[in-house]
Amino acid sequence: MDFLAHLASVVPAERVSTRAADLAAAAHDESSLPPHTPEAVVWPLTTEEIAAVVRIAGATRTPLTARGAGSSLEGNPIPVCGGIVLDLSRMNRVLAVRPEDLQADVEPGVVYQDLNRQLAPHGLFFPPSPGGSSDVATIGGMVANNASGIYSVKYGGTRDHVRAVTVVTGSGEVVRLGNRCRKDSSGYHLLGLVIGSEGTLGIVTEITLALAGLPAAQRRWAFAFPDDRSAASTIADLLRYGVDLAAAEFLDRPTVAAINRFRHLSLEEDPTLLLEAHGNALALQEAGPVVTAIANEHSARELVLGSGLDPWKEVRHYATRSVQALEPGSGTVRADLAVPISALPALVDACAAAARRHGRAAFVFGHAGIGILHLLVLARPDSAEWAAAQSIKDEMIEHVVGLGGAVSGEHGMGLGNRDYAARAFGPALELMRQVKAVFDPAGVLNPGKIWR
Amino acid sequence: MDFLAHLASVVPAERVSTRAADLAAAAHDESSLPPHTPEAVVWPLTTEEIAAVVRIAGATRTPLTARGAGSSLEGNPIPVCGGIVLDLSRMNRVLAVRPEDLQADVEPGVVYQDLNRQLAPHGLFFPPSPGGSSDVATIGGMVANNASGIYSVKYGGTRDHVRAVTVVTGSGEVVRLGNRCRKDSSGYHLLGLVIGSEGTLGIVTEITLALAGLPAAQRRWAFAFPDDRSAASTIADLLRYGVDLAAAEFLDRPTVAAINRFRHLSLEEDPTLLLEAHGNALALQEAGPVVTAIANEHSARELVLGSGLDPWKEVRHYATRSVQALEPGSGTVRADLAVPISALPALVDACAAAARRHGRAAFVFGHAGIGILHLLVLARPDSAEWAAAQSIKDEMIEHVVGLGGAVSGEHGMGLGNRDYAARAFGPALELMRQVKAVFDPAGVLNPGKIWR
Repeated sequence: MDFLAHLASVVPAERVSTRAADLAAAAHDESSLPPHTPEAVVWPLTTEEIAAVVRIAGATRTPLTARGAGSSLEGNPIPVCGGIVLDLSRMNRVLAVRPEDLQADVEPGVVYQDLNRQLAPHGLFFPPSPGGSSDVATIGGMVANNASGIYSVKYGGTRDHVRAVTVVTGSGEVVRLGNRCRKDSSGYHLLGLVIGSEGTLGIVTEITLALAGLPAAQRRWAFAFPDDRSAASTIADLLRYGVDLAAAEFLDRPTVAAINRFRHLSLEEDPTLLLEAHGNALALQEAGPVVTAIANEHSARELVLGSGLDPWKEVRHYATRSVQALEPGSGTVRADLAVPISALPALVDACAAAARRHGRAAFVFGHAGIGILHLLVLARPDSAEWAAAQSIKDEMIEHVVGLGGAVSGEHGMGLGNRDYAARAFGPALELMRQVKAVFDPAGVLNPGKIWR
Repeated sequence: MDFLAHLASVVPAERVSTRAADLAAAAHDESSLPPHTPEAVVWPLTTEEIAAVVRIAGATRTPLTARGAGSSLEGNPIPVCGGIVLDLSRMNRVLAVRPEDLQADVEPGVVYQDLNRQLAPHGLFFPPSPGGSSDVATIGGMVANNASGIYSVKYGGTRDHVRAVTVVTGSGEVVRLGNRCRKDSSGYHLLGLVIGSEGTLGIVTEITLALAGLPAAQRRWAFAFPDDRSAASTIADLLRYGVDLAAAEFLDRPTVAAINRFRHLSLEEDPTLLLEAHGNALALQEAGPVVTAIANEHSARELVLGSGLDPWKEVRHYATRSVQALEPGSGTVRADLAVPISALPALVDACAAAARRHGRAAFVFGHAGIGILHLLVLARPDSAEWAAAQSIKDEMIEHVVGLGGAVSGEHGMGLGNRDYAARAFGPALELMRQVKAVFDPAGVLNPGKIWR
C-alpha cells in the first residue's frame, strides 16, 4: 500500500495506525448499516497535516473519510471504499472565545457538551443541542451534517451558527470561507455549501461559531395527549400563533413505553410533548397561559415530571437507545423525516398507517417544532422483517417528498438515504455532482455518500 | 443581431424592446457607476419564457442580465457587456400564502412593501426590511443580493428566509432547490449558493419565503450621543448583554444634518441611535430599563421624536437621498462595510480618520446592530475629489478585511466592489469561478460582476 509510506513522511508514526482494533473502531457509526474496514486510521493535529494527508490521498487515489465521534446515524463516516479514515477527535481545542462578538473559534474535534461547558462562564452557549448525542458529538461532525437539535426551534441549525471555516479541499488546498461578520453579501456562499456536505467537499479544520447568550430565564412544560394527531396539532398551532418556543419535542406512546422500560421510569404512556421557552422572566410569564390554552384546545393533560429527574435528559436523550434496547438482536431501520409544520398531524397518521400495513411496530419522536420526526422500526437484519421495515421507510420518504418535505431533516444522506437522492433532488443532483468535482476533482473525499 | 430574431420566437413582441428609452432605463442602477446600454430589454412572464431566453443567450453567446427594481447600489444589474436585460418587474404575483407554515410563494418581481401589505391580514411579514428602498426593491433583487435591512438584527437576512427557489441556470435548465421544511440536511446547499449570487449563477423565477409573525408589541427608542464611538459602544453592549433588539440603526452627525436639510426637520445634530424591539408586551416592559441603563452608561440623551412624524421612515428611509441631495452635481463613492460587532467603535473612528486624511466629508450610517455601516463620500466624477474618495474607500475596505470583516455587508460585490474580490476571497475566488462555470458554462449570466 503505497500511501502508507507517504503518510509516514507527514504524520508521526504514533498517530497512524493499521492495527485491527483501530480499523474496526473506524469501520462503523451508530447506525445499523454494515461496517466497512479502512486500511489506515490517521489522527491529525493540524490543518497542515490534514492538507498533507489529503494530497497523499489524491496522488495515490486513496479514499479519505473524515470522522468525528462516529455518532452519526446514516453511515455518514463509514469508509465504504476503504482507504484512510481521518479521525479528528484529537483536534479538540477551543482556540478563542470572543464574548464581545458572541463568537468562538474551535477545532473540529471539540465535543458539543465540552464546548458549552467552556462557554458557560462567559454567559454563552452554542445552541443546536444534538439530542441524544450531545455528550459525544463533535462540532466538526455537526458541521459536516448541518446538525440541528432540541433548541433549533428558536435558534436554528448548525449552518445558522457558523460564520467561517478553514477547509482543506480535495486537492489539498487550504481555503478560508466566511468571515467574522454577523451578515455579509460578499461573493458566493461557499461556506454554506461546505456545511452539510458530509465531508465530501472538504475537511473542515477550524470553525468560527456564532453563539447565543444563555437565556435569562427558561420554562418547561410537558403535556400528554389522547392521540398523536392532537400533539402534532398543538405544535403547529403554537408556532402559528407565534409562541416563542426554544424547544418542542414529540414522543409517541411506544417511545414513551420504551423509555419507561429502559430507564425504569413510570411516565404516563401517552403521546407526549415537551416544550421549553427561553427569554426574560416577564416574557415567559406572559407566554405561560398561551401555551396552556393552546394545548388544552387539543385535549392535553399537563404532566408533572418528578423532581430530581431531568425529564429532558431522561426522555429525549435516551429515546433512540431505549427503542433499540427493546430487541437487542435487531437492527434499526430509521427515517429522519422533515416536513412543513402544518403537515405534522398528517405525518404522524401516515407513519402509523404504514407501520400497520407492513405489520411492524413503529416508534416516532423528534424535534417536531422544526418539523423533524424520527421514525424507527426494529427488525432482524436479512429477514422479511427488515424488508418490511425498509418498505415502511420507502413509503414514508415518498410521502414526505410529496408534502414538500425532505429526505433527511438532520442526519444527512450518508449511505442510508443515498438511494433517495435522485427522487429528492431531481436535476439539481447533476449540479451537485459537478460542484463535488470542483472541490474534489480526484473524488477521494468520503466517496459513496449522499448519492450512489 | 441574431438573438433578436430568436427572441421574437419565444416572447411576444410587446414584451421585447430595443427602443432607446427602454434601453436607457435598463442601463443603470441607483449607484453613481457609469451606465451601460443593453441591446434589448425583455419582460418575461413565466419560468418557461425565461428558460427560452436563457437558452437563446447561451446559443448566441449574448450576455443576459436580470433586473428587478434597479435600486441596487453597486452596479449589480448594469449590463456592462451589453446584450439582453431581463426585466422581472412584471412577474409580480404572490402565488400562495400558507399562514399555517409561515410561508409564501412569490414571483421575483413582487415589491417588498407590496408583499408585506398582502401578508398583514394573515398576521405575517417578511422581515428583512431593506431600508430606503422598501417601497421599490423586489424580492428577486433581495434574493440576488442576499439583502438585509433594518430588522435583520432580530430576524436575519434574506438567505435566512428563503426555503426554496425555482431557478433557471445558465444552460437554460429549470431546477428546484430547497423544500418547504424549516430545517433539512439533504444534499448540498445549492439554495444558499444561488442566494446572493447576483444573477450570475441563475435566474430565480419563484421563491418560497419563510415569514415571521407580526410582533404582538413593539417599542422604539432614540438616543443622541456626544460622539460616534459612544453610540457604537452602546450597540455592542446591548447585543453582548443579550437585549433582544429588532433594529439598531446608527447615524452620524453629518448624516443627521443632511436629513434635517433634505426633509426640513430639526433633529438634534448628534450621533444618533434608533432602536426597536419586538416581542410580547411584558417582555418589552422588562427590556426598557435595560436599554436605557446601557445607553446612559455611554452618556446618551434620550430623544423625543415629534409625533405625527414616523421617525424611522424619515430618518433612515431618506438617509442616502439626503446625503446625495447636498451636492446635486456630485456622485457618491460608497462602502458597505461589515465588521464584527465589537469592532464598531474602532470602525467609526477609522472612517472619520480616513476622511480627514483625504480632506473629504464622510457620512456614516447603517444597520449597526448587524455590524453594517455605510460610508458615503460625495465627489465630482473624474476629479481629484473622486480619487480621494476612492482612496478613503480602498483604505476602509483594507481596514475592515483586517478586522475579519467583509467587503460588502448587504449591497453585494457588483461592479463597485469587484476589484476587492481577490483580496477578500483569496484562494476561494478560484473555487467561485469554477462554481460559476458549473451553473453557467457559457458565461452569459450577468458577466463582469462580483470579480473582474
